[in-house]
Amino acid sequence: MTRLDGRRADELRPLKIDRHFTDASPGSVKISAGKTIILCTASFVDKVPPWLESQDQEGGWLTAEYRMLPGSTSPRSNRSDRPDGRATEIQRLIGRSLRAVVDLKKMGKRTLYIDCDVLQADGGTRTLSITGAYIAMIDAFSSIQELLPDQWPVLDSVAAVSIGIVNGEPLLDLCYQEDFAAEVDMNLVMTGSGRFIEIQGTGEEATFSEEELFQLIKFGKNGIDLLTKFQTNIMNQTSSFSENRE
Amino acid sequence: MTRLDGRRADELRPLKIDRHFTDASPGSVKISAGKTIILCTASFVDKVPPWLESQDQEGGWLTAEYRMLPGSTSPRSNRSDRPDGRATEIQRLIGRSLRAVVDLKKMGKRTLYIDCDVLQADGGTRTLSITGAYIAMIDAFSSIQELLPDQWPVLDSVAAVSIGIVNGEPLLDLCYQEDFAAEVDMNLVMTGSGRFIEIQGTGEEATFSEEELFQLIKFGKNGIDLLTKFQTNIMNQTSSFSENRE
Amino acid sequence: MTRLDGRRADELRPLKIDRHFTDASPGSVKISAGKTIILCTASFVDKVPPWLESQDQEGGWLTAEYRMLPGSTSPRSNRSDRPDGRATEIQRLIGRSLRAVVDLKKMGKRTLYIDCDVLQADGGTRTLSITGAYIAMIDAFSSIQELLPDQWPVLDSVAAVSIGIVNGEPLLDLCYQEDFAAEVDMNLVMTGSGRFIEIQGTGEEATFSEEELFQLIKFGKNGIDLLTKFQTNIMNQTSSFSENRE
Amino acid sequence: MTRLDGRRADELRPLKIDRHFTDASPGSVKISAGKTIILCTASFVDKVPPWLESQDQEGGWLTAEYRMLPGSTSPRSNRSDRPDGRATEIQRLIGRSLRAVVDLKKMGKRTLYIDCDVLQADGGTRTLSITGAYIAMIDAFSSIQELLPDQWPVLDSVAAVSIGIVNGEPLLDLCYQEDFAAEVDMNLVMTGSGRFIEIQGTGEEATFSEEELFQLIKFGKNGIDLLTKFQTNIMNQTSSFSENRE
Amino acid sequence: MTRLDGRRADELRPLKIDRHFTDASPGSVKISAGKTIILCTASFVDKVPPWLESQDQEGGWLTAEYRMLPGSTSPRSNRSDRPDGRATEIQRLIGRSLRAVVDLKKMGKRTLYIDCDVLQADGGTRTLSITGAYIAMIDAFSSIQELLPDQWPVLDSVAAVSIGIVNGEPLLDLCYQEDFAAEVDMNLVMTGSGRFIEIQGTGEEATFSEEELFQLIKFGKNGIDLLTKFQTNIMNQTSSFSENRE
Amino acid sequence: MTRLDGRRADELRPLKIDRHFTDASPGSVKISAGKTIILCTASFVDKVPPWLESQDQEGGWLTAEYRMLPGSTSPRSNRSDRPDGRATEIQRLIGRSLRAVVDLKKMGKRTLYIDCDVLQADGGTRTLSITGAYIAMIDAFSSIQELLPDQWPVLDSVAAVSIGIVNGEPLLDLCYQEDFAAEVDMNLVMTGSGRFIEIQGTGEEATFSEEELFQLIKFGKNGIDLLTKFQTNIMNQTSSFSENRE
Repeated sequence: MTRLDGRRADELRPLKIDRHFTDASPGSVKISAGKTIILCTASFVDKVPPWLESQDQEGGWLTAEYRMLPGSTSPRSNRSDRPDGRATEIQRLIGRSLRAVVDLKKMGKRTLYIDCDVLQADGGTRTLSITGAYIAMIDAFSSIQELLPDQWPVLDSVAAVSIGIVNGEPLLDLCYQEDFAAEVDMNLVMTGSGRFIEIQGTGEEATFSEEELFQLIKFGKNGIDLLTKFQTNIMNQTSSFSENRE
Repeated sequence: MTRLDGRRADELRPLKIDRHFTDASPGSVKISAGKTIILCTASFVDKVPPWLESQDQEGGWLTAEYRMLPGSTSPRSNRSDRPDGRATEIQRLIGRSLRAVVDLKKMGKRTLYIDCDVLQADGGTRTLSITGAYIAMIDAFSSIQELLPDQWPVLDSVAAVSIGIVNGEPLLDLCYQEDFAAEVDMNLVMTGSGRFIEIQGTGEEATFSEEELFQLIKFGKNGIDLLTKFQTNIMNQTSSFSENRE
Repeated sequence: MTRLDGRRADELRPLKIDRHFTDASPGSVKISAGKTIILCTASFVDKVPPWLESQDQEGGWLTAEYRMLPGSTSPRSNRSDRPDGRATEIQRLIGRSLRAVVDLKKMGKRTLYIDCDVLQADGGTRTLSITGAYIAMIDAFSSIQELLPDQWPVLDSVAAVSIGIVNGEPLLDLCYQEDFAAEVDMNLVMTGSGRFIEIQGTGEEATFSEEELFQLIKFGKNGIDLLTKFQTNIMNQTSSFSENRE
Repeated sequence: MTRLDGRRADELRPLKIDRHFTDASPGSVKISAGKTIILCTASFVDKVPPWLESQDQEGGWLTAEYRMLPGSTSPRSNRSDRPDGRATEIQRLIGRSLRAVVDLKKMGKRTLYIDCDVLQADGGTRTLSITGAYIAMIDAFSSIQELLPDQWPVLDSVAAVSIGIVNGEPLLDLCYQEDFAAEVDMNLVMTGSGRFIEIQGTGEEATFSEEELFQLIKFGKNGIDLLTKFQTNIMNQTSSFSENRE
Repeated sequence: MTRLDGRRADELRPLKIDRHFTDASPGSVKISAGKTIILCTASFVDKVPPWLESQDQEGGWLTAEYRMLPGSTSPRSNRSDRPDGRATEIQRLIGRSLRAVVDLKKMGKRTLYIDCDVLQADGGTRTLSITGAYIAMIDAFSSIQELLPDQWPVLDSVAAVSIGIVNGEPLLDLCYQEDFAAEVDMNLVMTGSGRFIEIQGTGEEATFSEEELFQLIKFGKNGIDLLTKFQTNIMNQTSSFSENRE
Repeated sequence: MTRLDGRRADELRPLKIDRHFTDASPGSVKISAGKTIILCTASFVDKVPPWLESQDQEGGWLTAEYRMLPGSTSPRSNRSDRPDGRATEIQRLIGRSLRAVVDLKKMGKRTLYIDCDVLQADGGTRTLSITGAYIAMIDAFSSIQELLPDQWPVLDSVAAVSIGIVNGEPLLDLCYQEDFAAEVDMNLVMTGSGRFIEIQGTGEEATFSEEELFQLIKFGKNGIDLLTKFQTNIMNQTSSFSENRE
């Protein structure tokens, strides 16, 4: 089967990452995969949530917010007063995924807000948000490195990718039209060292066999590998930065 | 490792299902697993959502709502103005899981509301909601059998179970204390015929290996098998009903 | 006039009370009168409302919340985001009625939340909530008896009943169909010792004479007497408990 | 016992009614009793509520809204986003009380909105709202007399008064300080012809005997008599108007 | 061009101010210009907003709220849950305009709430609110004169007026029908000493030339002069008061 | 006085406009002035607001929404549930400003949504939104040129600029720090042909003289001239497009 944009079934879309897209936030990454474009910013606030405050624990918190700008889709999507069910799910996923590789106790008493605002949506916004937010998070922590209690709080890298079954065939990194047609939809979040953070597989008014499940996982793992390499390359381009940390 | 209530690692909690718990709804099931108690009701409304109406399609819709009563936990949980992030995720999961085994086109132009109200919460409320809601759904469709266009709209049974890794060991059907301590938390929704509807595995500020992932899936599949048998037994106790449908 | 279920005009519906229906709350009562079924739980929270806190008074507070589960009616009622006008009135009435027999100064600095969730609605839900909540409140206070400052804070028992005029005739304890047809609707809340806590009589797009008013009060008083006896019997069944209190 | 303002126990506060206080609404009445001042306007909207529309019945609807202006109390009360529990109860009471004397079928397909905005609050705002709203309602119906299907839709007059027990003594028409100190608080709504529309008696963290109940009713009835006479006098001052209606 | 009510182009509507309209608030002014009637109350609250509190500055704050009563327009306007866009703009303007002549540091640690509730709306409600609120503010500060740290905090008087271009001609103090037809709409807020506080000129789906802009400003200045004289006269009528302040 | 970035008092910040920044919306412009960066998208929806629909008029509508992304400021600004007072004012201003140069009757029955999302905020976001939104609007109308009833609906160009008085001196195009320190703050919206659309001048807890007012207007007019030339240059770079329209 040929895909809409001529990709192979197991091929990622062209990926582009602009670090330091704006100055106001210490982490600010514009990331795009094909036509999907997301602005991920990471900002510190010198407070922790009340429930954490009351536990009287050392350490901080990391939370995420996700929204789509109205003009990011065609037709325009209504600006939502508050996160709808879908946005709530997505921002909880982004937050969990990043927290899985952060030692919160080493953050100091602060909250890192990750804001993922979709500038253009063409499928895979939640997984691309995670892949981009990881870079924004690294840049944010680097900006306060001298304020961190002792050690670097990030334990591993994170990337995420979508996989699906369309017309019976597994496909990697679905665009909107493929996603819309998919019978099964899966999101995989993994660390750079190959461990799982989150697996979410859903039959879209359909079901799937164990064999199909395993095939999707295999496709996803390969995609994550490529994304991790891309992230490492980007990080190395500012060599002074990566040396600072070790 | 011995579990808090003396169960084996792969053992379900005692399950109890009261069909026709109330009369006001055509489907009304009180289901309990250990100390978790849920009231699942299923009610028809003779309308479909506006987006379906505007598509001018035949068929109906199925949606779910999930809430915890304030007194279902100790300490009391606040009654929430609207479904919070967690409740939103759960009710979307319940709805998707049941729709995966329903041929919506065979429902007629109506909506089936599944209401899962947790009377007492001790872990596993989202998976138990699905297992109980399946029975309530069957009872609701049976009550309008003569109004259904032609054939029975339910294609398969559904059940769900939680699995997790606690102190490095996989456990089936976690109670609250086990769930709270779990490093990895997974929910599995499957059909009676052994196909997957949903798999959600999450590292709770932790990660997991592929080997652990496969072990959790194995435990979950066994649990679903037992729940499916229990559901079948319950349904057969009112023999006249199951004959009607063939 | 014969009533729908064959009752006499001054006869209560069959009453059933299950104490300790769940374990999570110290007070947990499932009460039913005919087809009306309510779950009343009573839970302590170790805080008092801000306005009481700021008065710097000793003592606590008691408040109530009331909701109908969506599946409690046929057709299904929408789950309301917040208490609507009717629910607001009812939960204020429940709270006032119980506070009238509690010496709040003897509660210690805590709030007792009374949650009345209607599992099935067939008329008289507000009055049955009060009758059931009284038992849940007693069980809750008993559970913290050793923490109470000095004396038992409950001064009297409370029960409530509805009365109405249907087709010109006074009726006790109306079911939904009778309530719907009633010209005059009254709710009476009284103590076990025969004193009034609340009287609410309303012409439903109708008016009533003083003679009718007095007749309704008479019917109601007799109903309250019977409910009080029923409550006393229930409480005495766990004799060890009532002895504790003297 | 002497009252704060020297009144006898069964004496009303000085009453003042300005009809046609503003021009924008067909009914516009400023009513004051002592220091309590309320602006009651009555406006028609050429629609009926959806639930009435769907019943396909002839006739209209009457509804009320009640709010206190922030500057009506000392200290200032916060402007509330939506009606709080108290305002909800009061506006439902005002609406019910007026509907009891209106034949809705004779209104034509329109809604009469009664808006009671408290300009200054010194006790008895809900009952004074009803007494004033009756005049505004009459003026509003008079303004569309030629549009009414056939007959005059108002069947009787309405007035309301508060009564209470303060330091063991029954008092009529309580000001705020008396109301604040009252053990028992009652509101009575009656027609000009002496029939009851609503009776609401509440022990304020107290209870009351049947004897006290009957005494309060007696006081209230006398107050209503005086208010009805006052209303009649006001209406007669514009003789042309009352002749129109016969 | 003759105006609807026979006024000259540069003539104000008849102005009427009732000071001390109610007792509950220290400042309470009913102001009317033609058929527009507004109740402006001014009340102190012994708190400052959190952002001011946290700045640890001496001094207070002044804020305004603006609403239209439902019956103030024909047809009735819906009571809004919260200030809509228009009300938000207006109440921010009122607050800014008064703060421009108040030395907040001389207020002491308190907030002055200005509440402008429109009893009848016939154009110019925002400017009339400012003109009336100034008097209410003066009366409020006078009532706490002995509590003020040292000096009188009000530096100048404030008045406001609307001007517009209707059918190509500039008009002063527009009524609703004129305002509705205006191509250009301007609001001018000035001090008694002739300095500008706010100028807002808007083409209503139209544009205007610099010459027209200057003409509108000239008309407005003359209107403000007259309003300032009126305010001074009103204030002098209670001579004892104005002497107090010198 | 030297400005923070070395500009002259009457000098604009460096301006940069990226047309067609995204594909999903027919108009998509990233505009920056110094460090302020805004994404302006323009999208058509084939409906008009209910109030316009009910007027049964030909023609369409144009409306605007404005928000700041949380990461656009340092420190991070909270994501607001709904537009706050400031955002409400700004989005109303943007909509009015563009409508002043559009013949709505020539739009056809559709709504043009202008979404201005601030990616980075350093002063002047409301005026820069208008300047950028004008380009996005032109691009959007061009994309549906063949669908427009007869003629081009845009009558003139629009641009906007801020001016203020800081330490007694007038300054053009204020950055955040200058804006924060300004005694007087003015926004000017004008057409390319030199006519006024909106003038908003505000004393920030200060007042200003007529002479200062006229000086600010002069500065602003010069700024608008430069912005208009910049807009024209940008539009001419895609010559095929501008020829289409003549």
